[in-house]
Formats: sequence, C-alpha cells, structure tokens
Amino acid sequence: MRVGVVGGGQLGRMLGLAGIPLGMRFRFLEPTHPCPAGECGEVITRAYDDPLGLERFVDGLSLATYEFENVPAQAAAWISERVPLHPSTRSLTVSQDRIVEKRAFEALGIPVQPFAAVSTPEDARDAARRIGLPCVLKTRRLGYDGKGQCVIRAVGAEGIEATVVAAWESLGSAPCILEAFVPHTAEVSMIAVRAKPRGCEAQTAFYPLTENVHRRGILWSSVAPAPCDPDGKLDSVARGFVQRLVDSLDHVGTIAVEFFVTEQGLIANELAPRVHNSGHWTIDGAHTSQFENHLRAIASWPLGSPTLCVGACAMINLVGLSIEPSQLLARDGARVHLYGKDQRPGRKLGHVTLCADTPAELAPRLARLESLVEWA
Amino acid sequence: MRVGVVGGGQLGRMLGLAGIPLGMRFRFLEPTHPCPAGECGEVITRAYDDPLGLERFVDGLSLATYEFENVPAQAAAWISERVPLHPSTRSLTVSQDRIVEKRAFEALGIPVQPFAAVSTPEDARDAARRIGLPCVLKTRRLGYDGKGQCVIRAVGAEGIEATVVAAWESLGSAPCILEAFVPHTAEVSMIAVRAKPRGCEAQTAFYPLTENVHRRGILWSSVAPAPCDPDGKLDSVARGFVQRLVDSLDHVGTIAVEFFVTEQGLIANELAPRVHNSGHWTIDGAHTSQFENHLRAIASWPLGSPTLCVGACAMINLVGLSIEPSQLLARDGARVHLYGKDQRPGRKLGHVTLCADTPAELAPRLARLESLVEWA
Repeated sequence: MRVGVVGGGQLGRMLGLAGIPLGMRFRFLEPTHPCPAGECGEVITRAYDDPLGLERFVDGLSLATYEFENVPAQAAAWISERVPLHPSTRSLTVSQDRIVEKRAFEALGIPVQPFAAVSTPEDARDAARRIGLPCVLKTRRLGYDGKGQCVIRAVGAEGIEATVVAAWESLGSAPCILEAFVPHTAEVSMIAVRAKPRGCEAQTAFYPLTENVHRRGILWSSVAPAPCDPDGKLDSVARGFVQRLVDSLDHVGTIAVEFFVTEQGLIANELAPRVHNSGHWTIDGAHTSQFENHLRAIASWPLGSPTLCVGACAMINLVGLSIEPSQLLARDGARVHLYGKDQRPGRKLGHVTLCADTPAELAPRLARLESLVEWA
Repeated sequence: MRVGVVGGGQLGRMLGLAGIPLGMRFRFLEPTHPCPAGECGEVITRAYDDPLGLERFVDGLSLATYEFENVPAQAAAWISERVPLHPSTRSLTVSQDRIVEKRAFEALGIPVQPFAAVSTPEDARDAARRIGLPCVLKTRRLGYDGKGQCVIRAVGAEGIEATVVAAWESLGSAPCILEAFVPHTAEVSMIAVRAKPRGCEAQTAFYPLTENVHRRGILWSSVAPAPCDPDGKLDSVARGFVQRLVDSLDHVGTIAVEFFVTEQGLIANELAPRVHNSGHWTIDGAHTSQFENHLRAIASWPLGSPTLCVGACAMINLVGLSIEPSQLLARDGARVHLYGKDQRPGRKLGHVTLCADTPAELAPRLARLESLVEWA
C-alpha cells in the first residue's frame, strides 16, 4: 500500500516511521529540500499546487493524507478526485478559516469566546467596540505557532477602534478574526481518531486529555493525563464535544481540538484535522500512537487502543537548540525524537518524552528535564 | 550522523526505524533489490564484496555495522580500515565458524555439547565414533534457520560411520562440525548490548532471558521473561556467561547467545554478533529496544534501559503467509511489524507482538494468537 502525504516535515516523518512497520510505503509532496520525511520514503520536491508535482504525487497511490491544514484548497480537491483523501476536504475547509471554524463549533453547541470577522476598517471598528479589551486579532488563514496574530491588551489615547484598525493593517489588511482574550487557568487538547473500518460502524478513539504549556506562542510541553483535570471531568466534556465535531464532519483520521480551561468550563480555541504536536507523547506513552491510528483510520483498518500504556507521560519540544542527543539520552527514561533538521532559532528540531508509573512520579522528573532544555 | 549497515533485510529496516528518531541517516549495502531496508535510507545495490559497491558504501559514513554475521571477512576488514566498524571483526570471526565459536565458549568455561571438526571422510568416521547418536552435522560456515545442517537420529545396517560420511557428502563435503544432540527441555536466548560511551567504563545491558520455540528450524515464537525460568536462576547464569563472552571479545553492540536448557544446566548453542530475531519483542516490550541500544552502543552513546516496560511480552514470526494486516490488528493488543516483502514460502515476512501485565495473562492470549497464525 503506497500512502501519499502532502507535506514532508516532522509530522510526515513520524507518520512514515509509524506506517512502515504496517507494510506501508510513503511518498511526500514537499517543496523544501532536504526535508525531515525524506528518510522515510520518496519525496516529490515541488510546490503543493504545482500541476506536474501533483501528477507525480498521485501516480500509483492507494490513498492520500496531509500533515498540515494549509494544503491549497484546489490542490486538495484535485487530489481527492483521483485518490481517496482523508481527512476529507470538508475537514480541511473548516480548519483553514478561523471564522468558519468558530461557526462550526457554535453550531454544535461547543462554547467559543466572542469573536467577529474583520475584512474592512469599518469591521475592525465595529469588532473593537463589540469585543473590547483584551482581545486577539488573527488572520483567518495560514497562521501557526503564534504567527499572523497580535494580542491587544491596552490602548493609548487614540482609542481601541484606532488601535484595532492599526493592528489589522499590520497584519497586511488580510481577512481577520478579532477574538475576546479568554482568561484561562490552563490549555488542554483532545486528540481523537475517527475511523470507518470496512464492514463496521464508525469508531472514535480518544486519547486522554493533554495539558499544554506554550512559550512565545510555541508549544513547550504536553502532559497526559492533564494535571488540571484530576477527576477526569474536563476529559469527559471534551470527548463529548469532539465526538459531535467529528461526526458532523464525517471526519476520518486524527483530529486535535485545543481548549482553554476557564471558570465557565472549556472554551474551544481551534482544531487541526491531522496529527498534532500535543499528541507526540503518544508514540511512547500510549498503546497505539496518534500516527499509527491516523494511518489505520485512513486505511479503513480497525483502530488500536489510545489508552496510556504507562501511568503518565510528558513531552518537551526542542526548539532551536543545538542538540547533543547523548546528553538527553543519558537522562533516565528520556526518549529522544529528532527531526533531522539543521539548527535555526525558533525551529522545532525534535522532542523528548518521559514516561512514569504515576503522575506524582512524573512531575519532579519533568521539572529536572525542563531545566536542561533551553530554546534558541 | 550517517550510519552504514551491511545487509538490507528486516534487521536493517528495524535498525533504520530505531535510528531515524535519533537523528541518524542510513545507507545499506544489499545486493537484492528491492529490500526491506529500502524504506529507511539509501541502498547501494551491489554484492557485499564488490569493490565499487564498498567504495560507495563507506563514502562519508560516520560508522558502520552489519545485520548478519556472514559478511565476507575481506569486506569487513576493508570497511574497518576506513570507518569504525562495530561489532569488530573479532566478533565476526568467532561467529562465522562454528568450531571457532565452540572453542571460544569452552575457553571461557561456558558449557557446550561434545563436538568434533569434520573436514575429511576420516574425520567424519572418528567424529561419529566419539560423538555417537543422536548427533547433528552442520557446515562450519553460512548456515542459518536450519539450513546447512542435518540431524542424525538412527543409522541402518551400514553403521554410524558410513551414515555420517554420507551426511557430510550431502552437505557438499564442506568443512563441518559434528555435535552431540543435546536433550533439552527448552531453548532460550540472552540478548545483551555492550557499549563504551565516551569517557565512561564499558557497560553491558542485558535483556531478560527469552524462551524460544522453533518450527522447521525457524524461530516460531519468543516469550520474555522465559516461562521455563520462573525464579530467574537461568537468567542470572546466562548473564554471567555472556558478560565473560562480550568482555573477552571487547564486543561493542548487540549480541545474542542461544542456549539449550538441560538437566545439567545451560549449554551454549551459538552466538550472533548482531540484533536477533529472538529480541524483536523488545521494540514493544522493553524500555529501549535491541535496535536502539545497538545504535547507541556503536555511536558511543549511553545505553537505555533493557528492562521490560510491561509484565510480559511475546513475539510470533509470520513466515510465508499472505498477511492481511487488518486481521491481526483487530486482535486486542497485537502489534504488527511487517517487512515489506513479497510472499514466498518459508520467508520471514513480519512478526507480531503481544504485551500483557503479567505472564499469566499473556499465556492464553498468546495461545489464541498462535491459533490464528499459519505458516506457508
């Protein structure tokens, strides 16, 4: 079975590493050369929307998927007319536009913060009055890791309306969303995989709720099960929300939904219709990783268990470091996953996981490991 | 770090899958195309002793290793003059000749069965008289999976001497070893990894003793910890033997030593200076797999823990089957590892592992899985 993946970064690489033992062969469509996925299959080094590249990409594929949600819509449609593409363009469409995404959450009764679309200076002024301070202005499309967004906490003498208009202009006057800033005590994500195995009902596997810490807009660490949810109540609420979402999208594959934990409960922030950084711990800490289950789902095979195979698991991203793997390998129990990239400040170069028998045992070991990791 | 592996079969493939997350890149020297390791790196499709192939193989390598012990001695020597080769040619030499191997065991006080070298008809007659029945005649070199050997249980009117001479001729009159057949209650293997991390003493990691069942001379299943050794006494004896062996060889990398369990204790059968089929369970059942630890050893990095990360783990080989992965994936907890080979009778196509919280829980699940697997 030859599987095509649009994108050849670390997510593609980890899909490849999970799928090769299942007998899959991989082909990646990725304009950047060399790329992390290059160790795990053939690479078509072409733009995502290059017609010749797309022709070569789909040739002889059994099925296709993607490692990022910003696949050009036309390219995704073109691929899906020639080879089964999972998750479908419906999941892609929702995730590519923050306004469409928020409205999809709302329509399913999944709480979101107040928000408004901003496409003109007039919209910006209206939105500013309605949403108030503090708020976050984000481009509707193509943002990631804190890029394409701008937090507005205070305004000067010129007033909130002028400040939001200026922020909108600083984002290139692109179509934007203005969101109320949500006071929250924690950030969590629910990673789920939905499959429709041949001859069976649809099934959804939920990983335990994961608590995430960000630094500079980039994921710093993930811990499962989420320490902020000791009794599992949030986990259960999040499962309900995500079940509604994946059923409504008829989603096939992995999905990640990020939530803010607030006094009023969970507020949905965004979704990613793909394997997700906050699920990397599942390679070492779950019976079946998010990568393997994504592949099982898109191949119409039964899913594996998403439960923890240890008592607790944590992941720390390695960003912009010059890593000497042996230093981290020498830390008792740390597992190192490098992406084969050259060092560059702000770049995700790899991640480390720690597994422990209990959450209480994990915490001090994680603190020690965190003190060793410094980002550049 | 670019690692070269002589041989591109499933062992090379699993080395690649273990090393890519450590940031390693792989190159394989393998005459057969396509080959299982082809999904995990560059392949030089040339004979193992082809001068041009060897030149291209070593070009730019950081270090080299091998996935099988029958690397031509001259090729191994040529590689080791150009790039660090682990395990060294010393370990290779011992493992390539069954007589040298037996004498190495004897010299270290590791029990072996009575044996005799057979290079002429006269040797064969002498050996037959000395060893008696039942006995096993094997070629000194290049045997594997029951190939190049012949069990002699009974003789006709022509007498034992004539029978052994005829058996020797049937093996091409190659240099052979005649071994007494060892009455045994079980077969076990000890897999160990020895490393000399930079600036540290040599360290050896021992996996738990593994019990193996063979069918038609091919490994059928492995279970760890070995059910025949409930109190761990054999494990402790085997560790002592293997520690002596790896120290005497100044071995760096993984080694597997197979033993017969007899009323008189352990009898060493053979060694393999490489990752071994009876250690495949370590991918899913140990904190660090034999593959990752082999790579950490040859890179002079500290070793990871070889202990079980579950209560018990079993592996079943898939030989000559037409495998529908989804059938095995549907078995609760089974993990499937396929090698990407075309089906052919007698060919190892993959393996399946089962992990359980206790040995008692593993046994019935293994029995159920065994009933599903049929070899061709």
